[in-house]
Amino acid sequence: MTEKLATAWDQRFSSAARGMRFSAIRRMSALIEKPGIISFAPGQPSPDTFPVDAFRTILEEVLAREGAGSFQYILTRGLAPLLAAIREYAAAKGIVAAASEVLVTEGSQQGLDLVARVLIDPGDVVLVERPSYIGATSAFRAAQARMVGVRLGPEGLDLDHLRAQYRAETAAGRRVKFLYVIPSFQNPSGISHSLSSRRALLEVARELDLLVVEDDPYGDLYFGAAPPPSLLALSKDVPGSRELLAHCGSLSKVLSPGLRVGWMVAPPELLAKATMCKQFSDAHTSTFAQATAARYLKSGRMPETLKVVRKAYGARAQAMGEALKKELGDAIAFTQPQGGLFFWARLTGAGGKVSDAAAFAKRAIDKGVAFVPGTPFYAANPDPATLRLSFATADVEKIREGVARLGNAL
Amino acid sequence: MTEKLATAWDQRFSSAARGMRFSAIRRMSALIEKPGIISFAPGQPSPDTFPVDAFRTILEEVLAREGAGSFQYILTRGLAPLLAAIREYAAAKGIVAAASEVLVTEGSQQGLDLVARVLIDPGDVVLVERPSYIGATSAFRAAQARMVGVRLGPEGLDLDHLRAQYRAETAAGRRVKFLYVIPSFQNPSGISHSLSSRRALLEVARELDLLVVEDDPYGDLYFGAAPPPSLLALSKDVPGSRELLAHCGSLSKVLSPGLRVGWMVAPPELLAKATMCKQFSDAHTSTFAQATAARYLKSGRMPETLKVVRKAYGARAQAMGEALKKELGDAIAFTQPQGGLFFWARLTGAGGKVSDAAAFAKRAIDKGVAFVPGTPFYAANPDPATLRLSFATADVEKIREGVARLGNAL
Repeated sequence: MTEKLATAWDQRFSSAARGMRFSAIRRMSALIEKPGIISFAPGQPSPDTFPVDAFRTILEEVLAREGAGSFQYILTRGLAPLLAAIREYAAAKGIVAAASEVLVTEGSQQGLDLVARVLIDPGDVVLVERPSYIGATSAFRAAQARMVGVRLGPEGLDLDHLRAQYRAETAAGRRVKFLYVIPSFQNPSGISHSLSSRRALLEVARELDLLVVEDDPYGDLYFGAAPPPSLLALSKDVPGSRELLAHCGSLSKVLSPGLRVGWMVAPPELLAKATMCKQFSDAHTSTFAQATAARYLKSGRMPETLKVVRKAYGARAQAMGEALKKELGDAIAFTQPQGGLFFWARLTGAGGKVSDAAAFAKRAIDKGVAFVPGTPFYAANPDPATLRLSFATADVEKIREGVARLGNAL
Repeated sequence: MTEKLATAWDQRFSSAARGMRFSAIRRMSALIEKPGIISFAPGQPSPDTFPVDAFRTILEEVLAREGAGSFQYILTRGLAPLLAAIREYAAAKGIVAAASEVLVTEGSQQGLDLVARVLIDPGDVVLVERPSYIGATSAFRAAQARMVGVRLGPEGLDLDHLRAQYRAETAAGRRVKFLYVIPSFQNPSGISHSLSSRRALLEVARELDLLVVEDDPYGDLYFGAAPPPSLLALSKDVPGSRELLAHCGSLSKVLSPGLRVGWMVAPPELLAKATMCKQFSDAHTSTFAQATAARYLKSGRMPETLKVVRKAYGARAQAMGEALKKELGDAIAFTQPQGGLFFWARLTGAGGKVSDAAAFAKRAIDKGVAFVPGTPFYAANPDPATLRLSFATADVEKIREGVARLGNAL
């Protein structure tokens, strides 16, 4: 009966839907509901960093000053004070955006989905970093994109590989619609493209007339050196590159993911289509959440908020790095992250230890610690020895305990 | 230059995006920004009805009790207390929904978009009422559905026409994916399907094995007699019909549209795909908005809120009906609405008066009053004499003044 029903539904679904699956991270998250598990799996920021007291003040202000207006429908583009605050916040990071170039989105995730919907026809190519962010590749897959990986080194994209992949796809008669990158503290690899690599990427985009979708949720989340400016900020130095850039930003990792407030900065033509698409997708992002975010940004609290966030994550990242060295030694290889939320590591197999991250993940859960194997982050040809560890949600003590359990699981 | 750019962008866009336009209502809304205009155009509820003081109390509770948790990521399906509150709210209206059958959405709008994305391949048929809601048809059009209208009479759908349209499309080799209906106080027509019409529709759905997407944002918004139970509530009387129903509900029209909280109740197979689709669309609906909605529903305030809303709209609808009769006489024909937000009217052309609603709308704006002509609400073959007037946002005095201006514009 159940099987018959499932078949009947398969015939009703769109071809896109037939390919949809719950993400590997979600499935892993279900496992970690077990009591006592220390989880390095999810991509969540630490709730310890959410400024709840400041939010209380801000919310009182929103109700007192805006009243019923903050509960009403607004235009899809976004609440005017938030659009202004975003443009100011972006300007401080070297991004000059006209009013016609900014759209408020539900985190940066919606920006990626909108871009996919307005650019991709089934079979069109999207170039992605190897590895890349699952939330993005899920959206591109749902638009029935063909995803093609480009090698990512410690300094950024392998631009020769980018050119080669672009040309191979084009020569095969396929349209390469865009390249998707997270240039700062990438999820999952933690890699930041260097300044020169970013500049060179903009030149190549211009050379190939290739749209670049820049996802930047982690750019402000550094505890070592600040990353170089975003591609969008750097585009002013590379004539003609600006009109090839769509930039997605978010408050999720630095203020609160639960607000679901992000933004897209893109050329007016692209932004107008994305706005039309958002109009029938959800009408607009929560007015109340937008009013709260706008007042928070305008209140002048962000520099202090960022200071708190950077300090918390810096301490946790340091603790995790030290513990990994101590407990796993040469069985694991990684680069100490300078920002973001993740360690990206590789099991070396040294001393005959396990080198398959999926097998290791199963053993780790038995020992009371969870993480995400690296395989789902690859468009194709995964490296099964890779894994991602988040240091964001567990405190320093739990991090030490969790990594000790990883040592036991080895 | 601009033209060249526009062409270049057209080549980059997906075929769905090339067909996207800003809605007629949005374009009309831009016009009514003029100072002094009285607007009967938008589909917004009245901010006078938003319980701002109660929200203040609720927000304090959310911060005090849930604190940082209300700013964190949650599972896509929705916040557990809100899912529970929605199931309770629905149960009071005769809808028994299992936990696996409910998804929190961004208003009912997102439910419609998700249904379209997981069911429609380009060229698939969606049957829609004649006329129908623009926000829904925009989402279906973006999924590249072929929309086919079914006649709507004062008692509900013309079921012979429904069968005929279904069979014609199927005979032509096309797949009819679903029928979209707003059975209570439809936007724009104000029509409610009668109880017997609803039961008969469920029988026909069963006979044709046809999915029905029931959109129900207005069911609680009555000031005359309550409408019959929803199709979903009635499905228990028609064996086999329940598994053919997706039901979209919302707090937008009875509590606050700015919260962007709605829900979908659907068979588990369909709901799971919609949830996967929402996962990469926006991760989840604002935690904070969900926590607020959950506490509001659980607080026991809804009966009083509904009383206030119904009273306010009842008075406005009565004032508009009286004014229309007085000022426009036999030049306009309409049925007095018993709920919802709209008058749907038809220019009769009596006494040689204008009978084209688009021409009338232009003249009306010159006289300082705005409304939406009916044409965009039709999938095809529009009736150009029809128009939609919202009585929701203007108070009784403004309604009288606005209708007097309509009289002048005739």
